[in-house]
Amino acid sequence: MSSVPASVEPIRRLCVIGVGLIGGSLARALRAAGHCGEIVGCGRGRKNLERAAELGVIDRFETDPAAAARDADLVVLSVPLGAVRDVLSALRNHLADDAVVTDAGSAKQCVVDDVRSVFGMIPPFFVPGHPIAGTEQSGVDASFAELFQGRRVILTPLAETSGDAHERVQSMWKCTGADVVDMGVRHHDQVLAATSHLPHVLAYSLVDTLARMDDRAEIFRYAAGGFRDFTRIASSDPVMWRDICLANGEPVLEALDAFSRDLGLLANAIREGDGERVLSVFEHSKRSRDNLYRE
Amino acid sequence: MSSVPASVEPIRRLCVIGVGLIGGSLARALRAAGHCGEIVGCGRGRKNLERAAELGVIDRFETDPAAAARDADLVVLSVPLGAVRDVLSALRNHLADDAVVTDAGSAKQCVVDDVRSVFGMIPPFFVPGHPIAGTEQSGVDASFAELFQGRRVILTPLAETSGDAHERVQSMWKCTGADVVDMGVRHHDQVLAATSHLPHVLAYSLVDTLARMDDRAEIFRYAAGGFRDFTRIASSDPVMWRDICLANGEPVLEALDAFSRDLGLLANAIREGDGERVLSVFEHSKRSRDNLYRE
Repeated sequence: MSSVPASVEPIRRLCVIGVGLIGGSLARALRAAGHCGEIVGCGRGRKNLERAAELGVIDRFETDPAAAARDADLVVLSVPLGAVRDVLSALRNHLADDAVVTDAGSAKQCVVDDVRSVFGMIPPFFVPGHPIAGTEQSGVDASFAELFQGRRVILTPLAETSGDAHERVQSMWKCTGADVVDMGVRHHDQVLAATSHLPHVLAYSLVDTLARMDDRAEIFRYAAGGFRDFTRIASSDPVMWRDICLANGEPVLEALDAFSRDLGLLANAIREGDGERVLSVFEHSKRSRDNLYRE
Repeated sequence: MSSVPASVEPIRRLCVIGVGLIGGSLARALRAAGHCGEIVGCGRGRKNLERAAELGVIDRFETDPAAAARDADLVVLSVPLGAVRDVLSALRNHLADDAVVTDAGSAKQCVVDDVRSVFGMIPPFFVPGHPIAGTEQSGVDASFAELFQGRRVILTPLAETSGDAHERVQSMWKCTGADVVDMGVRHHDQVLAATSHLPHVLAYSLVDTLARMDDRAEIFRYAAGGFRDFTRIASSDPVMWRDICLANGEPVLEALDAFSRDLGLLANAIREGDGERVLSVFEHSKRSRDNLYRE
């Protein structure tokens, strides 16, 4: 765990709304780094909150966001994108004067739109964020303090965002061992659509298609290790990913269109027995991936 | 390693044509099980053969298949599908009287067609086979004796195949710790198209598409663990996979069509903001995959 830079004020009271894989791991990491005082959890599932308290991930919990955020100087929303607007509405008149609010949503334009619609403007204390980390697991039991170590966290501060709020969110994520970078909202949404949202759509869609085939039992019986890895992300939380696909619809559909067009060309090459064309796609792909993961 | 059933004659001389991941691992496994005498390797790359001899995976090698198969009572072809016909032609008049020949190709109808075209019929000594095992690595350096343990090997014997040849190939694979099953040629090709060939096509195609985008550097920089797993199979051998896609073209295109149709419906649901439809696909997919890998 990175230690706290000497210049950074620790968080007095952290409020984590949505104590799942991301929210739980953040709480664990900040606690381990000695970067915060009290941690208050909030969420809709009382059982998960009780479990979080039992595990020591949070100190206590509230089921009402307004009560949970009372006197908190940092409020983190790590809920499915579809729940962001309601949570913001519940918080609106109950934030401390010095509160900074950030989120961990996988798409950013939709969050910015929700913030604008709830607050009537972009408040200077709001810093949109997205940690590029996760597993196909969910819930507080899957959380661990090291989740963000060496991973990237993207912040998409707006013109209205205060420098102080931006710095406090940067510091928070740095304490988890993450590499924190800034990016424009639209650029973030396009990059993540290509590299994360599209693969999830493909994996979900493939397993769904195969599971509806007549000989699905045989098909799955003879699946090898490659299939297991390829489809791992299809075990991710369906609600969270439905929300992401709808909230980031335009960039996801653009990436999907580009993919489908190229896939159609590849299918034609296979149909025509054009080995040269097929090989050139496969070689380019292998070369690109091997470069990416060259150790 | 499973021990050799007492009733099974060990292999006197094994000839492995194509000493890569599969051929090399088979040789190692049979040696470890004490199931064969001499192992003769053959292939087009002298360097790889020298390396195989140096590693003790094979006892000696020949670069001419006819010379390599001399006096071998078991000949295994583990070469890319596009090379099968030439190897069979080279072997045709040089097999020992008691030789059994099998292969490890990922599609079976094309191999059966090659056999018929080279021999003018299906010889009783030929047993088409396919071990469902592998990694994205290739070459003899990637081979290991345990590759087939607990994995499935599918044999697709034909009406012409002799019971004795079938049994000898079954015994060989059982010695590697694999679970050996029989299947019809066409059924094999359809099942594997869905579960293995299609995912490879999708992974190759996705990485190719992303690597040609303007902001590919950014895209790859923000790829997370899910992307790494999803695209692992895109690091597989492009020549081998080109051959598989062309050789098993019809079943691959059928699976691809079914997938593309469903993907188009999912895209429509995203476009229309139909969260219920999106969620039902994602939930069905997660449920199916979780059932498959429930431990």
